[in-house]
Amino acid sequence: MNKFTFHNPTRIHFGEDQINKISKEIPENAKVLVVYGGGSIKSNGVYDQVKEALGNHKWYEFSGIEPNPLYDTAMKAIQIIKDKNIDYLLAVGGGSVIDAVKFIAAAALYDEGDPWDMLVKQAKVKQAIPFGAVLTLPATGSESNSGSVMTRDGNKLFFGSPLVYPVFAVLDPATTLSLSKRQISNGVIDAFVHTVEQYLTYPVNAKIQDRFAEGILQTLIEEGPLALTDEHQNNLDIRGNIMWSATLALNGLIGVGVPHDWATHMIGHELTALHGIDHARTLSIVYPAVLKTCKEAKHVKLIQYGKRVWNLTNQNDDALIKEAIAKTEAFFQTMQVPIRLSDVDLGKNDIDAILTKLEQHRMVALGEHQNITLDVSREILKMAI
Amino acid sequence: MNKFTFHNPTRIHFGEDQINKISKEIPENAKVLVVYGGGSIKSNGVYDQVKEALGNHKWYEFSGIEPNPLYDTAMKAIQIIKDKNIDYLLAVGGGSVIDAVKFIAAAALYDEGDPWDMLVKQAKVKQAIPFGAVLTLPATGSESNSGSVMTRDGNKLFFGSPLVYPVFAVLDPATTLSLSKRQISNGVIDAFVHTVEQYLTYPVNAKIQDRFAEGILQTLIEEGPLALTDEHQNNLDIRGNIMWSATLALNGLIGVGVPHDWATHMIGHELTALHGIDHARTLSIVYPAVLKTCKEAKHVKLIQYGKRVWNLTNQNDDALIKEAIAKTEAFFQTMQVPIRLSDVDLGKNDIDAILTKLEQHRMVALGEHQNITLDVSREILKMAI
Repeated sequence: MNKFTFHNPTRIHFGEDQINKISKEIPENAKVLVVYGGGSIKSNGVYDQVKEALGNHKWYEFSGIEPNPLYDTAMKAIQIIKDKNIDYLLAVGGGSVIDAVKFIAAAALYDEGDPWDMLVKQAKVKQAIPFGAVLTLPATGSESNSGSVMTRDGNKLFFGSPLVYPVFAVLDPATTLSLSKRQISNGVIDAFVHTVEQYLTYPVNAKIQDRFAEGILQTLIEEGPLALTDEHQNNLDIRGNIMWSATLALNGLIGVGVPHDWATHMIGHELTALHGIDHARTLSIVYPAVLKTCKEAKHVKLIQYGKRVWNLTNQNDDALIKEAIAKTEAFFQTMQVPIRLSDVDLGKNDIDAILTKLEQHRMVALGEHQNITLDVSREILKMAI
Repeated sequence: MNKFTFHNPTRIHFGEDQINKISKEIPENAKVLVVYGGGSIKSNGVYDQVKEALGNHKWYEFSGIEPNPLYDTAMKAIQIIKDKNIDYLLAVGGGSVIDAVKFIAAAALYDEGDPWDMLVKQAKVKQAIPFGAVLTLPATGSESNSGSVMTRDGNKLFFGSPLVYPVFAVLDPATTLSLSKRQISNGVIDAFVHTVEQYLTYPVNAKIQDRFAEGILQTLIEEGPLALTDEHQNNLDIRGNIMWSATLALNGLIGVGVPHDWATHMIGHELTALHGIDHARTLSIVYPAVLKTCKEAKHVKLIQYGKRVWNLTNQNDDALIKEAIAKTEAFFQTMQVPIRLSDVDLGKNDIDAILTKLEQHRMVALGEHQNITLDVSREILKMAI
């Protein structure tokens, strides 16, 4: 196991009726901006619960954060913050809303030029407005980590800072009951790929991290398909297990002291930026191709993954690896997501544009060995056709 | 899964050469009291590393914290704190030292009478001196939780408060290389029983917590015996996996949203207080008897434990449970700890005194169902002969 520092200060309130906890979490004299996306929180009752919990707090609202949240939209929220002297933010929604609030929190206090520099030049975040989150779509883990992905002019970029951990996050599985099947499946796939990006690399004898990652994967494999059935559509246990899995998949814990991959995410981001494909669906398309292309580098962990996560027993290593990858693809298909570029009507003529974007964003040495060059990314994309 | 709030603010610095992180963790102008136990940190080099890391800090030291730390000893440290205007504490040692520092941190600022009331009357902790920990003996998890156990006049009692989370904890596996085999095995057993106290109860469909607990148990089962061999006595990976397991066994994470048992700990505390038996060795004596006595109440989880942790396949439930308990005892024996009262020269004539102590401490409704009355504790102790 490699050396590491781990610190996750976010306070989690998990379970039904926990939204009322925000009344005590947010200081009484705070001026709050509630930030959300479309109108879904109004139709599913979450907006009303938040409103009730805010009680006598002085608060304003800003809606319209889109999936793959845009810089331009976030900057509009910053104007309100300045006009109203807002000093606390509350994100209500999924990862996009929380990511946007992280950017807004830091950008509102950024005084060294264009805050987009935090993403494009990795300019240091020196201060941020404190904020909490009410999660309604388990997927990204953003509710309990320090990272954010924003989009501007077709560029989907990342920034992170310890200053943008949510102070608190409410995870009420009941808020997820109104999600569409597509949203559920996207969330499960996102959490799954977050996990494997930190697990399916090469072994460093980090037994706890491996077993925790395997536990998350097994839980998602069991609960994901159930959540899509009509029979279990109101099962809060299943929703709760998925929600807690998604948070733990990317709250830092399983990723300490181990190598990370993230090639699938980097390639996937370009697919979203160029073609508007849902984030999770870019992952389900790219990941099987990454496994096939990098199966030598991932050999030992692929065998462990096959045996422990899929209970495979094939004595032949290569056959077992093939089976493990096939199981992964079959799971993705059960979750009703595409597993090939052709499933979303893309093909070999689209590869050059993706590579151009990767090059532009300096994504030229990806993966746990930093040896996924543009040429290897081309192989991966060809494999994904 | 039950509703819960989870918050663990301790910053972990894990790995070799991480002791130097304390120089940045402790404010420059702090007046620090370094608290430790016997002289082992002087002979194994940890004291020197701490001294070097403290650099220009103003610091004092207090040694002599004993295993099962005593109230009277802790109160002596408080006198130094008052005399020298200490405003930061640094625990260097195992769980006993860290537990003592938690008590010292809170007791030094307790102004409503005898600070022992925090334990005997569960008087509320309203403030505490901030402190960090350099862990040298992985076992109790105290380095990243908010609980402490102290002893006074033969009474071993617990207190807890969010104010006594360590600000930071250094986990350098190299500091554990000089431990005796007895210390290693005690640590592994302590972490193991911490885990099962939160896992082996009744199912509430908390899949992540279950799998994380199983992952810790499997890691301890694999690494514990290896750490005792001469061949692997300097293997930092093994020590690291044990160290990280012990922290995660009791940092709150696996215990959220699930029932807790803790009967073994409560009965074990009396064995330590009355007979001076090492904490972990009281657990290895009591736990198998708890499993046998409560096997109906724990039926479903015992089967899950047998199948997932021990890979048992017996089709007959009762036989499988018997096998699972036998495996547990065999593991304890491999770890060279006693599994019966008779192994430590105690027997049926000693049971009444233990029950009297349990009654005195109001430990009359233990276990996840609060139905382990004194009569059931008597059954457990008879089973443990």
